Amino acid sequence: MAEENRRFLLAERPTGPVDENTYDLVREPVPEIGEGEALVRVQWISIDPTNRTWIGETPTYLPPVAIGEVMRGLGLGEVVASNNENFPVGTLVNGLTGWQDYAVISDENPLMVVPEGVKAEPAQLLGMMGMTGCTAYFGMLEIGEPKEGETVVVSAAAGAVGTVAGQLAKMKGARVVGIAGGPEKCAWLTDELGFDAAVDYKADDWREQLVAATPDGIDVDFENVGGEIMEAVFARLNIRARVALCGLISGYNDDEPPPGPRSFGNLLINRVKLQGFIILDYYPRFGEAIGDLSQWVSEGKLRSEETVVEGFEKLPDALNMLFAGENMGKLVVRIAD
Amino acid sequence: MAEENRRFLLAERPTGPVDENTYDLVREPVPEIGEGEALVRVQWISIDPTNRTWIGETPTYLPPVAIGEVMRGLGLGEVVASNNENFPVGTLVNGLTGWQDYAVISDENPLMVVPEGVKAEPAQLLGMMGMTGCTAYFGMLEIGEPKEGETVVVSAAAGAVGTVAGQLAKMKGARVVGIAGGPEKCAWLTDELGFDAAVDYKADDWREQLVAATPDGIDVDFENVGGEIMEAVFARLNIRARVALCGLISGYNDDEPPPGPRSFGNLLINRVKLQGFIILDYYPRFGEAIGDLSQWVSEGKLRSEETVVEGFEKLPDALNMLFAGENMGKLVVRIAD
Repeated sequence: MAEENRRFLLAERPTGPVDENTYDLVREPVPEIGEGEALVRVQWISIDPTNRTWIGETPTYLPPVAIGEVMRGLGLGEVVASNNENFPVGTLVNGLTGWQDYAVISDENPLMVVPEGVKAEPAQLLGMMGMTGCTAYFGMLEIGEPKEGETVVVSAAAGAVGTVAGQLAKMKGARVVGIAGGPEKCAWLTDELGFDAAVDYKADDWREQLVAATPDGIDVDFENVGGEIMEAVFARLNIRARVALCGLISGYNDDEPPPGPRSFGNLLINRVKLQGFIILDYYPRFGEAIGDLSQWVSEGKLRSEETVVEGFEKLPDALNMLFAGENMGKLVVRIAD
Repeated sequence: MAEENRRFLLAERPTGPVDENTYDLVREPVPEIGEGEALVRVQWISIDPTNRTWIGETPTYLPPVAIGEVMRGLGLGEVVASNNENFPVGTLVNGLTGWQDYAVISDENPLMVVPEGVKAEPAQLLGMMGMTGCTAYFGMLEIGEPKEGETVVVSAAAGAVGTVAGQLAKMKGARVVGIAGGPEKCAWLTDELGFDAAVDYKADDWREQLVAATPDGIDVDFENVGGEIMEAVFARLNIRARVALCGLISGYNDDEPPPGPRSFGNLLINRVKLQGFIILDYYPRFGEAIGDLSQWVSEGKLRSEETVVEGFEKLPDALNMLFAGENMGKLVVRIAD
């Protein structure tokens, strides 16, 4: 057990990517627990686009992290000391641990207990069987509702949510087109993950690639990115298309909101249904999603992909890796063995 | 009966409002009808924002009107000669008559027969009991779904669809805010039509007016306008708000699509459902809507409002009146007694 509690505290709100001034890395004593409390040794931390939205000026679906407060983040850890019978020593817990080695939990401030029967790697518990998999599951299956033979486009397709969302649409018999950055990721999507086509948004001719990959237009947009890419996708939406609006990552590092899509009018002309969603709203139904996802993984129908970064001090860099698109699949940081 | 058939043929596609070069007004002989055909004397023509979208370059939900073709438009007329027992002489018919004195119809190219029992003024048959009323009905009640105490915003609120949509939301117990141009229209909405508040978009302080009129945010946006007004409304949408995307009239006279709303991200943060719709999709259910609307009108729960322009030659001007917001309620042109 570490002798100290490393914590990233928010020092200032970044304008653009996080940098060396964004956080103070402090070393505090391992917290003492009081009555009804338990101590969690955090082992893995999940890196998500929403981390960046939580440190902006603007309240989103949660209040912004305050200056001086520990950075908000999802993590996985083990109870190492306990005065609470709901969280006995050895229990694996999952949730908003924050960017720190140790978190104190209680009935008022709990984390989700990972059921003992769940057989999954820690990174999977934060990815496919966590927030990420559930996001893809509800967004694609309940909002996108792809039908056999329809064309589905997934942006940020090589990312944590995108890899799962695309595979789920394939399972439904759709033609699936992924948008990702660089020929390597594009080849990986088609060769390894079974996507029907991929569009390299870093190539000069990405617009032509998108047109070529969607000859029958687009019936479902699983939207993670926003900006110009979303604008181009909206312009190709078919009659009664669905947009599962999951993220707008292209704008999260900007101070000003990006221009809206000029192709917005196509939502009217083609009677499109667009639904914004935040996965926390589906929390009561996570069990259902995780049950299906783990079965499909065990049957070999779904592949779970992770990129692992080693070391607590790499957390801020890992967040920038995500925005630079340097990960494939779920991005996690291992901060303890 | 007129001795000739006046027709507005599309001469060139306008850039901006229609002008004296947009149409050729031609005078042709009254058409002879063949086997299975009937001749309709058009009496009233409905002026709708969509008229302008049909003469642009871009196909919308219908192909653009071709150069040299009669201007597409909705109208109401009476069968004056018939070789078709489905359309006996004296029958009132309603639908895409075009901008002309006479239309030839048949089983392959029909118009909707107005049932004999319907008691309504001709302008009402094109308005409240026509496409307009049905648009407000399905858009507000099935997409917007306002609940008691919620705040509903209607743009182009003094227009044909807006006046009905706002009144329907009032019937559901919502707080209804109309956006309209000029103090006269705004006063009319609150004093005569029962809106709770009105925002004058021609006033310098319209943004402040919108904020003041929606202290609890906005739960339903019945969107007719687009552009800056929609952007400001989107920024105030509450969690799980609904947008009934009915029209984007502010951009219809422009060559280039307007910028999309910068507040687009709020659709994600607040989990908004947006549904574009075109009223023709609801055609099979018009009877249901018209039944309810006529009952509510007869009970005094709904007021039907019309602005009538006299004279066939005024049709192009009437279309521009609509975009200048010079009408209150439904805008119709009477072209025959």
